[in-house]
Amino acid sequence: MPSSQAAEATQTGMEIITRPSSMMQAYLESSIDWDRLPPHLADAARYGTLGGGKRIRPVLVILSCEAAGGRAEDALPAAAALELVHCFSLVHDDLPALDNDVLRRGQPTLHVHAGEPMAILAGDLLLAMAFGELARMDMAANRVTALVDELASGTRDMVVGQVYDTLGGLPTDIEALEQIQLVHRNKTGALLRAACRMGAICAGAADAEIAALTTYGEAVGLMFQVVDDLLDVTQSTEHVGKATGKDSALGKRTYPGLLGVEGSQAVIDQLHQQAVAALEPLDSAGEPLRDLCRYMAIRTR
Amino acid sequence: MPSSQAAEATQTGMEIITRPSSMMQAYLESSIDWDRLPPHLADAARYGTLGGGKRIRPVLVILSCEAAGGRAEDALPAAAALELVHCFSLVHDDLPALDNDVLRRGQPTLHVHAGEPMAILAGDLLLAMAFGELARMDMAANRVTALVDELASGTRDMVVGQVYDTLGGLPTDIEALEQIQLVHRNKTGALLRAACRMGAICAGAADAEIAALTTYGEAVGLMFQVVDDLLDVTQSTEHVGKATGKDSALGKRTYPGLLGVEGSQAVIDQLHQQAVAALEPLDSAGEPLRDLCRYMAIRTR
Repeated sequence: MPSSQAAEATQTGMEIITRPSSMMQAYLESSIDWDRLPPHLADAARYGTLGGGKRIRPVLVILSCEAAGGRAEDALPAAAALELVHCFSLVHDDLPALDNDVLRRGQPTLHVHAGEPMAILAGDLLLAMAFGELARMDMAANRVTALVDELASGTRDMVVGQVYDTLGGLPTDIEALEQIQLVHRNKTGALLRAACRMGAICAGAADAEIAALTTYGEAVGLMFQVVDDLLDVTQSTEHVGKATGKDSALGKRTYPGLLGVEGSQAVIDQLHQQAVAALEPLDSAGEPLRDLCRYMAIRTR
Repeated sequence: MPSSQAAEATQTGMEIITRPSSMMQAYLESSIDWDRLPPHLADAARYGTLGGGKRIRPVLVILSCEAAGGRAEDALPAAAALELVHCFSLVHDDLPALDNDVLRRGQPTLHVHAGEPMAILAGDLLLAMAFGELARMDMAANRVTALVDELASGTRDMVVGQVYDTLGGLPTDIEALEQIQLVHRNKTGALLRAACRMGAICAGAADAEIAALTTYGEAVGLMFQVVDDLLDVTQSTEHVGKATGKDSALGKRTYPGLLGVEGSQAVIDQLHQQAVAALEPLDSAGEPLRDLCRYMAIRTR
């Protein structure tokens, strides 16, 4: 892609993210009942949730809901639930016993900020609150139960991915590339897939639309992590806002480690195409998701 | 109570617990899809769940469901969900950064058995799986969403209680006894209350029955923890199956610390009476819950 096109795609992607991301930020700040928590726990929970990030998962929920004919407002509690799960997972993954990260989004991680006991408990709280958000939704009960199912499955698979990533235990009868895919599809892909499906469920989408958004979510989910792998080798800590170069330091298997930078870029392009192709049944309603995917694909350029 | 009556109450209580407790154990062993997890994660999750205990929370779910006219079978997934939450909380509370316990039900705690990273992640998994159990229920969707709401609220309050207990932060403008109650009602009481309410919801109980079982659950929930406080000072580690005498060693405020053994016993008797009185609207259907409460009250004698 020529650099002028890349710049344009970046501009479009940023614009597409800004609206749902701002909606999410406002919802997380004001629609979640932090004040009923003890102040120190509320502080920790807010610290783990409100510190920024692009809010890619809730953006996917909201845009998927709209792509399937729903309203962004109706998807907000589900989007918040998914973001709370994501934030819980970051808080726990950063713990000394796991990834032992001290920096996240350019700030001290929660266990550095508030201590390890508080980080464990605030993480637990965020996960429980995520499901509480779904239960409070003003939506047909059968949709709510479908959302609970998606969120629980996605969270389970994410934990499986984190276990594979930090504790090993991958099946040994599959190729190295399949092993990496298994880690990525669980650790990152499961929640991004769930995001697209939850958005579709909020819209009351037909099966064909749910299927299209599922395929899109799976391709984008894997692509997102391959991009992350690539950023880990090509960019600085300052630029990314968290420690980079850790994958290779830890001897973790990654796409660039196995396929090189160019090989990984080819995989990203391929997944990008798969994601875009999956959106065809949605016609023009899928355009924002198409632009978002393009933006996510070019983060590495 | 003369010792012959106490012996009879113990016998009756054991009999009442045995049936629902065995049903729960069988369900946890065979109806939860442990095998779809990576083997080492499945081992850890099973270790944290299947190690025994009286299963008081699921017993309360099942007996409350029956007291409100429902069938035990219909309440099993909700009972399992609550037990998974309880087991997750034990795994995390035992962690070195929190209570740092090495013994639970007479066995090494999960982080001793499988390492701290696995204990954190397996705990997270159990919490996610709990909500997954609810989503899979073959029950009217509005009941399922009510169950999700109860479980999420109960878990949130339990975490609040654990934060108060291990990290302090209690309101200082209330009496010492109120402070202890606030810890106990959250840390232990919230899930026991939720158990009774979830059982009632599974039975499709009327509001008056739900209210009766809520009051019962609140009284039993606080009583359970006062009994636990008392056991901590009167019984040995060997007898209880976990470390005792820790409360006073840690300088934690407890009922016996504040009211003495006899004063605590008087509180137990009072809560016992409150719980039994709450069951009156249920007539004879409440008898098993009455017997269970009597059994729980005399654990300290």
